[in-house]
Amino acid sequence: MKNLGALLRHIHLNGPTSRAALTEEFGLNRSTIMALTAELAALGLVREELPDDVQKAGRPSLVVSPESEKVFVLAFDVAVDWLVAARVGLGGVILDRRAAVRQRRFPDLDDVVGTLAEFARQLLRDVPGDAVCVGVGASFCGMIRPHDGTVRYGPKTGWVDQAFGPELERRLPLGLPVRVGNEAHLGAVAENERGAGIGFRNLIYLHGDVGVGGGVIVDGKRLGGDDGYAAEAGHMVVNPFDGRPCLCGSRGCLEAEVGESALLDLAGWPHGSVGRDAVASVVHAAERGDQTAREALNRVGDWLGVGVANLINLFNPGVVVFGGMLRDVYRGSAEQVRTRIEANVLPVSRERVELRIAALGDDTTLVGGAELGFAGLLADPAEAVSRARRPRA
Amino acid sequence: MKNLGALLRHIHLNGPTSRAALTEEFGLNRSTIMALTAELAALGLVREELPDDVQKAGRPSLVVSPESEKVFVLAFDVAVDWLVAARVGLGGVILDRRAAVRQRRFPDLDDVVGTLAEFARQLLRDVPGDAVCVGVGASFCGMIRPHDGTVRYGPKTGWVDQAFGPELERRLPLGLPVRVGNEAHLGAVAENERGAGIGFRNLIYLHGDVGVGGGVIVDGKRLGGDDGYAAEAGHMVVNPFDGRPCLCGSRGCLEAEVGESALLDLAGWPHGSVGRDAVASVVHAAERGDQTAREALNRVGDWLGVGVANLINLFNPGVVVFGGMLRDVYRGSAEQVRTRIEANVLPVSRERVELRIAALGDDTTLVGGAELGFAGLLADPAEAVSRARRPRA
Repeated sequence: MKNLGALLRHIHLNGPTSRAALTEEFGLNRSTIMALTAELAALGLVREELPDDVQKAGRPSLVVSPESEKVFVLAFDVAVDWLVAARVGLGGVILDRRAAVRQRRFPDLDDVVGTLAEFARQLLRDVPGDAVCVGVGASFCGMIRPHDGTVRYGPKTGWVDQAFGPELERRLPLGLPVRVGNEAHLGAVAENERGAGIGFRNLIYLHGDVGVGGGVIVDGKRLGGDDGYAAEAGHMVVNPFDGRPCLCGSRGCLEAEVGESALLDLAGWPHGSVGRDAVASVVHAAERGDQTAREALNRVGDWLGVGVANLINLFNPGVVVFGGMLRDVYRGSAEQVRTRIEANVLPVSRERVELRIAALGDDTTLVGGAELGFAGLLADPAEAVSRARRPRA
Repeated sequence: MKNLGALLRHIHLNGPTSRAALTEEFGLNRSTIMALTAELAALGLVREELPDDVQKAGRPSLVVSPESEKVFVLAFDVAVDWLVAARVGLGGVILDRRAAVRQRRFPDLDDVVGTLAEFARQLLRDVPGDAVCVGVGASFCGMIRPHDGTVRYGPKTGWVDQAFGPELERRLPLGLPVRVGNEAHLGAVAENERGAGIGFRNLIYLHGDVGVGGGVIVDGKRLGGDDGYAAEAGHMVVNPFDGRPCLCGSRGCLEAEVGESALLDLAGWPHGSVGRDAVASVVHAAERGDQTAREALNRVGDWLGVGVANLINLFNPGVVVFGGMLRDVYRGSAEQVRTRIEANVLPVSRERVELRIAALGDDTTLVGGAELGFAGLLADPAEAVSRARRPRA
């Protein structure tokens, strides 16, 4: 059973793989691999086919592929910026999606769950008849109690102790548990498994979504801390005395100094400008020579650099990945960030660290939510299939 | 073999334990436990005796005790403040020690290793004839390459890429590998296993030794990062603009703001005052009402609080332990530290975190070195005994 999950996980993350390659990868013998892939095929999770281009002499090794069209999760992404729902197939393929853009004020629990449930209804309506839903995962822009998906605290949503997970579960027509995680925690996993951080054992993910979230991979595992609230890099105080006020009630937090409103403010953008497009427009203006935009970006980049330098000193990671709107901010201020790293990181800790931009683009956190949805299936494929729902049946 | 090590580890950390209690603790049956403890006894690692006070009817359960006098490691503690060598018995008993106090300038590799080797010679001379040395562990105040014990960088020692581990190994008359770790990393383990942090899965240890070192336990394991250089909390920048210069070349590092010289400076202590006694004297003066000392401590405590608040936001630990000279600093500025935590830590992350003073006193890092020395024995008792050295044979 453990091998079955590990094998499925390999195919889920790496795509179609020949039995021969699986045999080598897992160090099991051919007949064992054959039995396992047959079991996965019998569960409807993979199919085994002859490779397209058979060239070598002898019997070719069958290729094992994930049944992406038939086995899916529902994934949700609740950002300050937007609400997204998607149907994501085994293998990580986004098959279909619905999205709503940001409102002026963050909506309340009922509205958020209502919108997501309606999206889910639409997504499930269009599902092929033989498709099964094996899990539900949601990424949320706030601090999440892991075991029940309650939003404990979200400075930018204004939510305190809102039963988001249970409520969403109640409103979906599936009877499947809804697993919820913090957006940046899940983003770290997504970039580690499928994005800019593949292969790294220690990774920092900084997610810009109006504010700044953090996710950390320590020795291959998501850092949670005692209660699941770790990695709050956005609320690391970098400017303890003259800091900008932060929505969390503190001052000089990293997100107060490098978040959306700091950048737009410093750049002199019109009052009321919001969103990732506005952030991108500051970066473009700076690139085109706008001096105020350039100075704003320099200043924000310097603060971002202080935060990144501290994180490198604390975690000795192999890579730091910038996601969400920080992709644009980092692109526009990489020099300032690097200067701070040179100045503030201990020499031996910066010998090998890399700085990268999220490879999954705007979907990093959504993909993280999907992976959370797949977790039960990958832990125990047979058990998960027995509980799966066929929405059109 | 895995059970054998786990059993020995339990006795090493918890002291004399009845077979009945071990049976319950490990969920193995009585005969298995009996076979394992017999094997440990045959290896000379434990003894089995009738309990002192036999009261219950029936055959009493034998008590299994570590052979602390006969099975030992050499432990070294190289602090900026001092050099210590000790013979530490199984069970964590410090049997004998030699120490030299701090010099004006930190000595070079040859001098340090020479002093430690001479201490070791003296310690080994006084060993009982039937005692065996099963390992050597050293705690060092610098950044250590784990696999060979090279000191990569020590801002306060001035050392860069010094082959401390290999050189100490060469100079000891034992032919045993010398394992070296960063003092605060090892201190975190020591306080987690034997001190103020017993039972916590996530722990921060801040060690004051002229500067400030950090050690972090994440989900029960020491945080190392990609290369072993993680947890450098002392070089987290807390004061990016007006910060005091740090010996690492940066400014405004936590250790620059709360280290020994910052406190003595601010308190107006005579130029040239150094050492833990001087730090303690500032705290005592503040307690007696010395206004300058009080203000110095308030300021240092505020910076310490910024650092601690950031660490709590990042790691969501169950406990923060203050060790070395930070025991005195924290004792004298707990209010400032708590005020910062109230102001800067996200509410849900500070619901349950505790702040404590190191329970192992000045021996936290030495005990950590000893535990590193015992690691091989606890991983594979039989193998380690076969390689052990009988110094008086």
